[in-house]
Amino acid sequence: MAQATIVMRLESSQKHFPFGVVATLIDSHGGEVVSVDIIRSSKAGSVRDITVMIPEQDQQKLLSACAEVEGIRIVHVSDRIFLAHLGGKITINPTRPIKTRDDLSQVYTPGVAKVCEAIESNVENAYTLTIKRNCVAVVSDGSAVLGLGNIGPHAAIPVMEGKAMLFKQLANVDAFPICLDTQNVDEIVEIVKAISPIFGGINIEDISSPRCFEVEQRLINELDIPVFHDDQHGTAIVVLAGVYNALRLVGKKLEDVKIVVNGVGAAGSSICKMLLYAGAGHLVPVDRAGIIARGEQYEHPVWNWLANQPQVEANKGTLQDAIVDADIFIGVSKAGVLKVEDVKKMNKGNIVFAMANPNPEIEPELALPHVSVFATGRSDYPNQINNVLVFPGMFRGALDCRASAITDEMKLAAAKAIASVVTDDELDEHYIIPSIFNEQVVREVSRAVIQAALAEGVARRVPNQ
Amino acid sequence: MAQATIVMRLESSQKHFPFGVVATLIDSHGGEVVSVDIIRSSKAGSVRDITVMIPEQDQQKLLSACAEVEGIRIVHVSDRIFLAHLGGKITINPTRPIKTRDDLSQVYTPGVAKVCEAIESNVENAYTLTIKRNCVAVVSDGSAVLGLGNIGPHAAIPVMEGKAMLFKQLANVDAFPICLDTQNVDEIVEIVKAISPIFGGINIEDISSPRCFEVEQRLINELDIPVFHDDQHGTAIVVLAGVYNALRLVGKKLEDVKIVVNGVGAAGSSICKMLLYAGAGHLVPVDRAGIIARGEQYEHPVWNWLANQPQVEANKGTLQDAIVDADIFIGVSKAGVLKVEDVKKMNKGNIVFAMANPNPEIEPELALPHVSVFATGRSDYPNQINNVLVFPGMFRGALDCRASAITDEMKLAAAKAIASVVTDDELDEHYIIPSIFNEQVVREVSRAVIQAALAEGVARRVPNQ
Repeated sequence: MAQATIVMRLESSQKHFPFGVVATLIDSHGGEVVSVDIIRSSKAGSVRDITVMIPEQDQQKLLSACAEVEGIRIVHVSDRIFLAHLGGKITINPTRPIKTRDDLSQVYTPGVAKVCEAIESNVENAYTLTIKRNCVAVVSDGSAVLGLGNIGPHAAIPVMEGKAMLFKQLANVDAFPICLDTQNVDEIVEIVKAISPIFGGINIEDISSPRCFEVEQRLINELDIPVFHDDQHGTAIVVLAGVYNALRLVGKKLEDVKIVVNGVGAAGSSICKMLLYAGAGHLVPVDRAGIIARGEQYEHPVWNWLANQPQVEANKGTLQDAIVDADIFIGVSKAGVLKVEDVKKMNKGNIVFAMANPNPEIEPELALPHVSVFATGRSDYPNQINNVLVFPGMFRGALDCRASAITDEMKLAAAKAIASVVTDDELDEHYIIPSIFNEQVVREVSRAVIQAALAEGVARRVPNQ
Repeated sequence: MAQATIVMRLESSQKHFPFGVVATLIDSHGGEVVSVDIIRSSKAGSVRDITVMIPEQDQQKLLSACAEVEGIRIVHVSDRIFLAHLGGKITINPTRPIKTRDDLSQVYTPGVAKVCEAIESNVENAYTLTIKRNCVAVVSDGSAVLGLGNIGPHAAIPVMEGKAMLFKQLANVDAFPICLDTQNVDEIVEIVKAISPIFGGINIEDISSPRCFEVEQRLINELDIPVFHDDQHGTAIVVLAGVYNALRLVGKKLEDVKIVVNGVGAAGSSICKMLLYAGAGHLVPVDRAGIIARGEQYEHPVWNWLANQPQVEANKGTLQDAIVDADIFIGVSKAGVLKVEDVKKMNKGNIVFAMANPNPEIEPELALPHVSVFATGRSDYPNQINNVLVFPGMFRGALDCRASAITDEMKLAAAKAIASVVTDDELDEHYIIPSIFNEQVVREVSRAVIQAALAEGVARRVPNQ
């Protein structure tokens, strides 16, 4: 039962504020008064901020009841989450103060001119003399934000700011949100290319499928800085890390197991590709139309590609057909599509990653008795598949070695690095994925990414250490 | 004689570093050793960083001499300005730390979803719940950077970062540099529109004339946030502030004086418009083709507009014709175009603003004996006309009142506010313009801008005090 902390600003038209009445209402709705602040008080009336902790589902009822109290008007209601967002969540600061004319003449005119000339003579100097070295754009068009859908560029800002916070806090990357007021693929590509000079990398975020595939691929082709669509590859990399550790736990090998991936959109496509790249031997992709079977023809480019891979199952059918004798189920689809009887038909030592958002393909309470390893996308169960484990370390590594691209080998290295953070001693069915607050994650991911980038020849700099 | 502080990293192939030889060379080239740091020392050789203060023009000779010392190799040379730019000059930080899962669930998923929904339901909420409230884009295409010309978007970054530093330090505005890899007007307009959701204002910078006029005007028409081309209006506003105070000093009135503006490009156009808007009675604009005369036809849209203003002189001629009996000369042209004999032909109590960059239209040493008030764009003479006096306070005010545009009345208010910071007691021929470090400037400018915005009906919010 989720508790919300809300702040109600109430105005009384009488000098005497009927606090007893309000307090009784709060109590009778299961809430608790946290604090009371008097904002204004005069003969003409008074205003108080009352902070209340209350179960989320009772919030609206309490407000309606308060609104009916005679002489009381609700001025506004804020909750803790809104308060945490007031004025935004990131800030841009100078790295050093400008206190004197001498400071100014170094970082601005006239001194800055020779820095400009140094970059003009060799554009690579932008990596040492500007924030390009450490700066990533978090680009969204607001078309597929969280589970909220096409909410537009303004409404997407809080997510992108949150991402920028995580970039800095977890990996010391300077990230700036670019929320685009266009959903046209050509325009998105041209705009991102045009604004790219100051950035050392592009993190694409919450652009709907299938446009996200084209946007990413064209930017990869046309830019010489890493471009990474987090919804696809971030999720795929953590899934692969989880699969590695789950298999370690049940004593099976990726080559031998039968894997069902349900939902082949942005994340599902990348999960399938990553699994095959990592050496999966038997894959059954399933989408709304049923099993995506080897040998069939599909309009969706990724589906068609999958239908041409030898490791993909040739038999057609439904999810219920696919699940029989499966070792691993990976769901990036929707709530409730996996039933208890389905799970029972899986092989022994079965692994279920039910990552539909916000409610999983099967409720943990139903699945757990019949599953060896269970993971979701949620933070309130063990084994959260969270791409916050990936993007900070991935870009830290890519920036440090000035990678021109993020290759499959770098993604694979990141997955192995995440898996490696959980030691043999620690590994159990409730701990196959490290916490996002585990500082080893960024360190190991960035180190592995750099090594892979150097080995693949996409690194343009050998970082110190 | 400009002194540079450089750091020479020298490698010696012998164990013994021939410091005496190097020190003698530094001395004989007019330099001074500031410090010596031993970076590495072994039998195989050693590396030292030698910091040297030396006249800028002797730097290269010293380096050549050092390079010829036997057993010495110059690893690299940095100067203090380059060192101040290493890694860039701004940084993006979270406004609060994310330390726990509870923190994360407020500023990121799942809590952030309801903030997104609040903005989706009313886009104005972006002003309270995101950085839009305080965030300005500093947009350049790198086509006219400082006096360096068309150096491109990468080489422009250091200037835009410097500007972002000043925005924060002087006015607590979060500014982010957008350096565009296109110089096509249509593309610039479309890109800035598309990236505008996260910004509360657009500062256009160093875009060459005449493209800058169209870019600014179209963005003003199509966006509901303030758009301000600093090279035009920033300069014009400080010039007007300087003119107000210079006239106060010589006891003349704007309506009565004859003003020659030499150079009618981006800045000159806006200076002419501002002067007329402020009530100037007699204006003589001059460009390469000579006097822009009332009644003539011109291709350049601003010239043509000027030729239709009743306050503009109808006689054609050269700068030398225009300057006779002028009270004020304002130059935004090039070095040396104004001669001593020209200045002598001006009226008594004459005012000369010679702002060509980096060298003024007439050298101060030549002009000062014949001029009542003299100002330049340079920091090494009194009365620097510096648009750093304008943009921080202008955007502080515009953001605080959520202005939808920056009107002429707001610009005029800013000019008067800057002029007002210099009190009657303080005012003299060496002090008509306040220092950019005078904290009153931003305060007075933003206050005046807000009042004007409210009066004009372009403010969408009445700020607290």
